[in-house]
Amino acid sequence: MTPNPTRPDPVQPATEDARQLAHRLLTLSHAALAWEDPDTGTPGISRIAFARDPQAGLLTLISGLAPHFRALRDRPDCALMLGEVGDTGDPLIHPRLMIRARAQFVAPDDPARPALRDRWLQRSPKARAYIDLPDFAFVRLQPASALLNGGFARAFHISPEDL
Amino acid sequence: MTPNPTRPDPVQPATEDARQLAHRLLTLSHAALAWEDPDTGTPGISRIAFARDPQAGLLTLISGLAPHFRALRDRPDCALMLGEVGDTGDPLIHPRLMIRARAQFVAPDDPARPALRDRWLQRSPKARAYIDLPDFAFVRLQPASALLNGGFARAFHISPEDL
Repeated sequence: MTPNPTRPDPVQPATEDARQLAHRLLTLSHAALAWEDPDTGTPGISRIAFARDPQAGLLTLISGLAPHFRALRDRPDCALMLGEVGDTGDPLIHPRLMIRARAQFVAPDDPARPALRDRWLQRSPKARAYIDLPDFAFVRLQPASALLNGGFARAFHISPEDL
Repeated sequence: MTPNPTRPDPVQPATEDARQLAHRLLTLSHAALAWEDPDTGTPGISRIAFARDPQAGLLTLISGLAPHFRALRDRPDCALMLGEVGDTGDPLIHPRLMIRARAQFVAPDDPARPALRDRWLQRSPKARAYIDLPDFAFVRLQPASALLNGGFARAFHISPEDL
């Protein structure tokens, strides 16, 4: 997402259509998360549960057994990608939203947690089986920048305020 | 994927079923790729076209305009995730394969490239529109380790030789 100095930035400023498409992708309940392995300094990747919570913003719920749990504790910079691949055509024509973010763990005694937990369960009732296990944590994903790719040569910058 | 010394590794050795599931996921034509931004040292994420080529192994085709093109040139360590999320149930129950890899660009005059290009087009005829553009490159993704997650508490190590 960093412009290459040797040629013009191929990414356009956001249009209203691009912002609407980004908002649709933010309703998905899962994402791919890129993180940095604190032991090796190399990239790791995981599927995460995802929600855009009306108060807490971009949010995930992570098991302490997941490799990205400790990674995000030690190296909070991460990136997430939202978007499904449809059945037809080239997989790269289907829209996806890439967000650079910083992880902030929600403490078990955070006063915002009970309401946030209740809203998560309203959206994902099956999470009741594990949401209160002691090694699970909610993690806010504070966006720093975002890129919407709507297919070949259709890329847009989306500002964090629009997420 | 690095074992945590403070508790037992929650990931099991591969079973025959796990290897077969990994092979099914390797037939997908797209993946999520985690990479490191050479400017900031922080994670980035992209959707990539993917194939397991019978000769070249794990393979992608990348546009020079994509942010991960320069990133993989400068920092070849990366991680990919293969797997679709189905329509029903918790998104985390659907299987996915995470592979730590190292990117190797295929030179335009690499003697293996013509056959590799022809096989790519057999699988993805629509790639004919861009496969020969001068800033596109094939990139081999040499696997270092892999983890198959088949749902809650069903994680398996998959060795690179099994990919």
